[in-house]
Amino acid sequence: MGKLTIVGLGLIGGSIGLGLKRAQPENTEVVGFDLDREVMTRAQRSGVVQAIASSLEEAVSDATMVIVATPIVSMRKVFQTMGPHLRRGAVVTDTASTKGDVLRWADEFLPEGVHFVGGHPMAGKEQQGLHMAEAGLFEDRPYAIVPSVRALPGAVNAVVGLAQVLGARPFFLDADEHDAYAAAVSHLPLLTSVALFNLARKSTAWPELANLSGPAFRDLTRLASGEPEMSHDIFLTNRENVLHWLDRYIGELQRFAELIASEKEDETLFRSLAETQIERNIFLEKLPRRDDPALGVELPSSADSFLQMLTGTLWQERQRAKEITEAMQERAEKAAWEERVRRRKLDIDE
Amino acid sequence: MGKLTIVGLGLIGGSIGLGLKRAQPENTEVVGFDLDREVMTRAQRSGVVQAIASSLEEAVSDATMVIVATPIVSMRKVFQTMGPHLRRGAVVTDTASTKGDVLRWADEFLPEGVHFVGGHPMAGKEQQGLHMAEAGLFEDRPYAIVPSVRALPGAVNAVVGLAQVLGARPFFLDADEHDAYAAAVSHLPLLTSVALFNLARKSTAWPELANLSGPAFRDLTRLASGEPEMSHDIFLTNRENVLHWLDRYIGELQRFAELIASEKEDETLFRSLAETQIERNIFLEKLPRRDDPALGVELPSSADSFLQMLTGTLWQERQRAKEITEAMQERAEKAAWEERVRRRKLDIDE
Repeated sequence: MGKLTIVGLGLIGGSIGLGLKRAQPENTEVVGFDLDREVMTRAQRSGVVQAIASSLEEAVSDATMVIVATPIVSMRKVFQTMGPHLRRGAVVTDTASTKGDVLRWADEFLPEGVHFVGGHPMAGKEQQGLHMAEAGLFEDRPYAIVPSVRALPGAVNAVVGLAQVLGARPFFLDADEHDAYAAAVSHLPLLTSVALFNLARKSTAWPELANLSGPAFRDLTRLASGEPEMSHDIFLTNRENVLHWLDRYIGELQRFAELIASEKEDETLFRSLAETQIERNIFLEKLPRRDDPALGVELPSSADSFLQMLTGTLWQERQRAKEITEAMQERAEKAAWEERVRRRKLDIDE
Repeated sequence: MGKLTIVGLGLIGGSIGLGLKRAQPENTEVVGFDLDREVMTRAQRSGVVQAIASSLEEAVSDATMVIVATPIVSMRKVFQTMGPHLRRGAVVTDTASTKGDVLRWADEFLPEGVHFVGGHPMAGKEQQGLHMAEAGLFEDRPYAIVPSVRALPGAVNAVVGLAQVLGARPFFLDADEHDAYAAAVSHLPLLTSVALFNLARKSTAWPELANLSGPAFRDLTRLASGEPEMSHDIFLTNRENVLHWLDRYIGELQRFAELIASEKEDETLFRSLAETQIERNIFLEKLPRRDDPALGVELPSSADSFLQMLTGTLWQERQRAKEITEAMQERAEKAAWEERVRRRKLDIDE
């Protein structure tokens, strides 16, 4: 019997619980913990988790996998508190929107023999909380996997398996890449949305603006309704990247201001707008191929038999997951073959 | 038999046609015209309009109401061409996203005895075209009504009635107010969306960014898929207001940059984010009351009996429309009463 613990039962933690429940993993107990006892009790009653614990220490002891889904800044304390109580070979993952600090805290506070593999499901809603949780929240969403240097391939596989079970598209990044890219496509959009709403709200013409506003204003200010704690943690733990992209964004706005100010006939501005439309429609139709970094993952080498079982069992449930697994297998075999070729070359050279 | 002509059968013109069809106005023929003959034929075949015409002149002759739903910059030419063929007493309205230039063109090219009442339904989709049209597009959306100084109250009522038939929330603004406010809640959001997509798209990391991007990036760049012609016309015909609000927006972004750069503990930035969340949720729950400018509308004084019939008949269809009518009646009575008081005072003063 494996034990999988979810720490933090908000929108993300709760949705992971529901996603796991839907997948019906065999021989696995899903345990939940939350500082808010009422939320924890509700999670158990509504079947989001099968069991709850009276303390974080109890919740994680003997767990084969721990998923930390608390606010980012709290993770430091969570790692510190649970560190001494984790069993050797346990896999720890998280769901934070930034990864640099989280990986540093994991390195500092999680004991040797525990495998930390960062995770960031690119999904969410502006309304947080357990009552908003849903099993399908991660369906077809990107799920960034950011392994720590100490994590064994089997532990990485387990988190990839988790992402797949939830229906997400796992993909690998290192922490620096993750935080730089997430600043551009997630944290900057959040900031543009907050600023847009604030600007209008603080105008003396607000009653008129609000009444005149249509779906464009509503959609583009959606993220301004996000949890302030989450936004705050994101901006603080990814400060430099956010400021960098914000600076570039202001530059881009100024470029458009110049185009608008100088436009006479259907010239540069029009061409730029037409290009934008085409490029965005291409983006909607098909994601560009990314140069996949070598995964460095050998599939059947997980240190922990529970994890093999968990991922193995769950993968059988989903044809799509199976296809991804096969693709990974292919890549791993290709990498192994290239390695053999390289070694042979070295043999010859020597 | 009244004749209502829609000029331009794209998303907006087509949706107006379908909205009118759903309301089943009696004794009214809806005629459509589009420069694209194929679009026009499709509109007739699919019942968006009941009849089509071989020329703009033919389409508008004898029309009691003409709705111009072409691209903004084309309206100048449309007014110029159709002006001499309009019957005396006809009501002309439009659907352009900016109003200053359109009202000037109407003043210049529409003959005396024709009533121009600008309109701007705050609804749309990034995908344009007749095939995207739907009867419910304007449902519960604001519909700005911007009467020309020459328009008789009855003509204004007819356009208010049109907005109500489409299920929209009509409200009055003058052209300057409209363009200033629309710049803030519609044209600036468009620009922020276009710039955000462009910034990411032009980054060398685009393949990574696109693959990592979740719903936030997708929603906030939605308007970047808008028709370039429409965006271009908006920016050109509302240049000063757009640049003014863009400037203020950059200022607001810089204010947040400073908050992020200087944030130590949960202080100013956190409070600002928390306030934003509260204010946006208030906005979603209930629109702020606006100080309604005196409407100056006396309901049963329309010059044209068709318009009375059209609006009268249609209003009976909708309880909500009836309520709005009653509210307008109340305001009109209040205004009349105040006018009597004012006159009496003048009598006394004299």
